[in-house]
Amino acid sequence: MFESAEIGHAIDKQSYDIAVADLREALLEAQFELQQHKRFAVLILINGIEGAGKGETVKLLNEWMDPRGIQVESFMAPTDEELERPAQWRFWRKLPAKGRIGIFFGNWYSQMLQARVDGRISNARLDQAIHNTERFERMLCDEGTLIFKFWFHLSKQQLKARLQSLEQDPQRSWQISQLDWKQNRVYDKFVKFGERVLRRTSRDYAPWYVIEGADANYRSLSVGRIVLEGLQAALHHQERRQRNPHAAPLVHSLDNRSLIDSLDLRLQLSKEEYRQQLASEQARLALLMRDKRMRKHALMAVFEGNDAAGKGGAIRRVAEALDPRQYRIVPIAAPTEEERVQPYLWRFWRHVPARRQFTIFDRSWYGRVLVERVEGFCAQADWLRAYGEINDFEEQLHDAGIVLVKFWLAIDQDTQFKRFEERASIPFKRYKITEDDWRNREKWPQYVDAVGDMVDRTSTELAPWTLVEANDKRYARIKVLRTLNAALEAAFARDGKG
Amino acid sequence: MFESAEIGHAIDKQSYDIAVADLREALLEAQFELQQHKRFAVLILINGIEGAGKGETVKLLNEWMDPRGIQVESFMAPTDEELERPAQWRFWRKLPAKGRIGIFFGNWYSQMLQARVDGRISNARLDQAIHNTERFERMLCDEGTLIFKFWFHLSKQQLKARLQSLEQDPQRSWQISQLDWKQNRVYDKFVKFGERVLRRTSRDYAPWYVIEGADANYRSLSVGRIVLEGLQAALHHQERRQRNPHAAPLVHSLDNRSLIDSLDLRLQLSKEEYRQQLASEQARLALLMRDKRMRKHALMAVFEGNDAAGKGGAIRRVAEALDPRQYRIVPIAAPTEEERVQPYLWRFWRHVPARRQFTIFDRSWYGRVLVERVEGFCAQADWLRAYGEINDFEEQLHDAGIVLVKFWLAIDQDTQFKRFEERASIPFKRYKITEDDWRNREKWPQYVDAVGDMVDRTSTELAPWTLVEANDKRYARIKVLRTLNAALEAAFARDGKG
Repeated sequence: MFESAEIGHAIDKQSYDIAVADLREALLEAQFELQQHKRFAVLILINGIEGAGKGETVKLLNEWMDPRGIQVESFMAPTDEELERPAQWRFWRKLPAKGRIGIFFGNWYSQMLQARVDGRISNARLDQAIHNTERFERMLCDEGTLIFKFWFHLSKQQLKARLQSLEQDPQRSWQISQLDWKQNRVYDKFVKFGERVLRRTSRDYAPWYVIEGADANYRSLSVGRIVLEGLQAALHHQERRQRNPHAAPLVHSLDNRSLIDSLDLRLQLSKEEYRQQLASEQARLALLMRDKRMRKHALMAVFEGNDAAGKGGAIRRVAEALDPRQYRIVPIAAPTEEERVQPYLWRFWRHVPARRQFTIFDRSWYGRVLVERVEGFCAQADWLRAYGEINDFEEQLHDAGIVLVKFWLAIDQDTQFKRFEERASIPFKRYKITEDDWRNREKWPQYVDAVGDMVDRTSTELAPWTLVEANDKRYARIKVLRTLNAALEAAFARDGKG
Repeated sequence: MFESAEIGHAIDKQSYDIAVADLREALLEAQFELQQHKRFAVLILINGIEGAGKGETVKLLNEWMDPRGIQVESFMAPTDEELERPAQWRFWRKLPAKGRIGIFFGNWYSQMLQARVDGRISNARLDQAIHNTERFERMLCDEGTLIFKFWFHLSKQQLKARLQSLEQDPQRSWQISQLDWKQNRVYDKFVKFGERVLRRTSRDYAPWYVIEGADANYRSLSVGRIVLEGLQAALHHQERRQRNPHAAPLVHSLDNRSLIDSLDLRLQLSKEEYRQQLASEQARLALLMRDKRMRKHALMAVFEGNDAAGKGGAIRRVAEALDPRQYRIVPIAAPTEEERVQPYLWRFWRHVPARRQFTIFDRSWYGRVLVERVEGFCAQADWLRAYGEINDFEEQLHDAGIVLVKFWLAIDQDTQFKRFEERASIPFKRYKITEDDWRNREKWPQYVDAVGDMVDRTSTELAPWTLVEANDKRYARIKVLRTLNAALEAAFARDGKG
């Protein structure tokens, strides 16, 4: 969920200055229109890692817009009056009016997270708080409120550096909260529970935006852009009886740096290394699948990736290791007639394996947020809500003991071009290449965005994405096998503990 | 929640036969259109009290419509295959396709309720199941599915009679489920947990319909009408990108018998009885409000009722008992400018009392589902979602220790007419009567429906409605005071146990 926010996004000063000039003007204009029509209120929730620039960003938003139309509320320890009333009362009394922008710093999310990290509440209580929050936000959106939820993120290393610089600055050291962020343990817990909260509360009508906080220029510009585009979309939204759509794009990279681009595609294996490792990883997989601890589990693998990234070859190397009765390969193409008259996820649910079984999906339910999104095969509202629905689906798989491993096989454009050419020239491979494949290539940047959003929104502790550097097919195949094996071993180890 | 389904609804054979002839034709026609266009699937969930006619109704729906387009699924003990997979898998595999109607008998609700009644799961686990269900149904509705949820109800007495007749009929005695319904304890638990489930899962896009099951004619006709009207509304719904609105009216009484009409408005007190009881109940309230156990509580009272039902007089008799520093009367009229730019519930949240305090609402948040609904001051979508939002609001009040008592003061039309005339003729009362009051009288039947729906959907264990027979003002005032006192005492008693 935080993958894209740990790759060192940055924007140089010159680009930043140019972009900000335009941004400020547009923000002010949008805010003016908001104030004029008073049709809805805007609520901006600020959360995330300490030191990731939460305070600075709030300050900046106030500078960029007309501060008279903005109210910043920070909810510290509840007052006597607040303690006397239901927990939500303190938030209700500070809600921004229509036409105004409320920035809630230390909101319901900070409270539930801090309580969980401190161990004051259990997971079950956290889930209850999450559920109440969901209903609260749904009601606000039904009443027209436009909600932005920002999670400012830093990697553990970035946090360490940041805390050191804050400490040395007496004017800012007070910014560090009660939580003792210098402890790795606190960071780990915060990120772990944060992920649980984000996964369950990121909904189409009020999605989370995860912002990498290390570089101030990148961070500020990202937040400003998201607020601007969301505001503009809501202002131009005609049907007032519907919730404001979060037409703000998901996080488009401003610095042209994406999770996918940050992969080192030069990684490779020699023939000899490959031969040895293939044999040992295949043997390991065969053993694990026959392990009696599989009685509590099943295995599901999802293969997605660029065209010609080598999904088929990787799947074959996995299957080779196994008894054909143990696994099943499900190729996902256009839905059948029977599947088209069912809810979207139906055709995947039907292939959920029984215990001890292994289902391999060659493409998957992620089609909705990849090809269907990019090609416009479904409405924006449909792919936007799909992230949440997919996370719900995968949570159910996990809860039933199913180990789910998701692969994105990534190649660069040159490699793809070479493979296409090769396919076109070798007669028995020619069937593998179509006009569509060439057309898809033209939408490479859109696919990069879609893959980034997909990983950001669906890579969870329960079902993480594994990005596979696949320019070298040998390297990719070994990484796939090794990841499957590690996932099964981790599940067995958890059984031991539970 | 089940109030309206315990008043002895019934329809005579002749009226039934006439109505059914038309109903069947219209149902068949709607089903044909559904099958033609295959735009959405219909899911009918059958739940409720044993012996309340669930099976018979399903049979009838099959007779009335074309059974080839209907699939009845009853989920008994899971099969081996189902046990091997996530719990939801068995429901997914049986989902009706677009154009078809699925009747789910023994669905997710039966499972969670039976597990809770048996004590196999805790409240926390029940809440989790409720939450998963909510997400599942929301997804189905987003995919276009039209969901009807029926709860067949019987009062305890009705159940007893029904079980006896079933037992004596060897051909039908198998219909009684595993739960031992002959025990009062089972009934009480089932209704208690049922209410919790209904309250939390009755949402605008998939509301519950509670059907009194004692009279077969009434029961069958009600279900048939609701399905027909819901189907027709969905078939004519144009905007396919939105969820199907549940435009089916809430339960309109088919036999012209309503909860309100079932009150005995002749109840009265003599002057002497009144004088004595008023003194003692007021003294009791004063004592309770000063009791040190109030440190954990606050009191909120809602007064709704027909125009001229005597709300003001009743409120004065309550206030008389108290120190003015303890209570506050909040009259609810048109919202102020400040209130209009906030979410609907905001103006009520701001008056939530601190501990030991008492807030009296003269009219309340129920305006949305009464006057705003009847007069068309808000969109149907808004008042439909208000039931759920109000239940969420009141649950929070309850969880914070606030005792909430809700009164509907009911008078008949004659009494209202007399009081209007009286007001018009007495100079110092003339300000109390306006043109609006006379106009509202014309909408008496619509108000009766709205009040019935309101009580059915928002009278909960946590915050029940008290219907007050108010033709006699003395009787009404004493009942109000007595109910307040009893509610406080019950809360104190619960503290003792907790």
